[in-house]
Amino acid sequence: MKVLPPSKVYQLLEPGPVVLLTTARKGRANVMTMSWHMMVEFEPPRVACVVSGANDSFAALRATKECVIAIPALDLAPTVVEVGNCSGRDVNKFERFGLTPVPAACVAPPLIAECFANLECKVVDTRLVRKYNIFILEVLKAWSDPARKNPRTIHHHGYGRFVVDGETIKLKSRMR
Amino acid sequence: MKVLPPSKVYQLLEPGPVVLLTTARKGRANVMTMSWHMMVEFEPPRVACVVSGANDSFAALRATKECVIAIPALDLAPTVVEVGNCSGRDVNKFERFGLTPVPAACVAPPLIAECFANLECKVVDTRLVRKYNIFILEVLKAWSDPARKNPRTIHHHGYGRFVVDGETIKLKSRMR
Repeated sequence: MKVLPPSKVYQLLEPGPVVLLTTARKGRANVMTMSWHMMVEFEPPRVACVVSGANDSFAALRATKECVIAIPALDLAPTVVEVGNCSGRDVNKFERFGLTPVPAACVAPPLIAECFANLECKVVDTRLVRKYNIFILEVLKAWSDPARKNPRTIHHHGYGRFVVDGETIKLKSRMR
Repeated sequence: MKVLPPSKVYQLLEPGPVVLLTTARKGRANVMTMSWHMMVEFEPPRVACVVSGANDSFAALRATKECVIAIPALDLAPTVVEVGNCSGRDVNKFERFGLTPVPAACVAPPLIAECFANLECKVVDTRLVRKYNIFILEVLKAWSDPARKNPRTIHHHGYGRFVVDGETIKLKSRMR
């Protein structure tokens, strides 16, 4: 994994890929599947996300204020669904699904080796947690796997239907 | 345009498409390009989005608390970029780019006829506007164009690079 400049983080999340979110509490790591996230700021990269109180990860995120957003490509799609279909209360999802936890540099939750990018995050605002389960995160360190060229991400349309990245088009734009 | 049940709205926005946002103030409609949005609640459908203070639409959204999220498909990609590259302060973007405003049912900002789906929204929370430019919207009425089968949306990766929806995969999932 190679360090990714903060200024490039938005290019990973802005397109709306399904991601994995890792947390760690009392020495136990957990992982969930997440699609409700958005960029909030370019630099420092800030991200908003929704973690439902029904998820075991909610309590860990609220208590520890740390997480990692790991971005899977198409090859992990079946794993992504399986991770979302069970709870960390019942099972060690890393072992069950063959995900390799890698120590992060700035936070306790692990990176996931099988994901092509990993974002170490801390929670910086919880004002909308009570009403909407919205956490505001700041990305402390970003990693990408240089061996993975042009990873194709997946986008959730509901009930296990995913659309995979297709062709790339390039248009002349003054927008960042 | 056909009314879309509120329960299906998340299937449009969760995959992370680039969207257009219309506002209306003092009888003048405007439109901007937006990629920073996420679902917050299934029903009633609630959406969070970031509208920069640098956009002319920011003041209109904050003052009127109404907007329409219009979802374009690939055919509109060049228009989406052009809309993002200029300001409503200088030009009537609907006229300039051949977008057809259609009266909405519940809000003053118009739907866009060329988009395959349109979501009429009101602002329901502004607590994070000052610090992050985050608006919380509630979708009052959703429309989709039944003549548009399997529209391919576009996903922004920065600087005019877009990835177009590719193949669809279906995995067995208990997740909504």
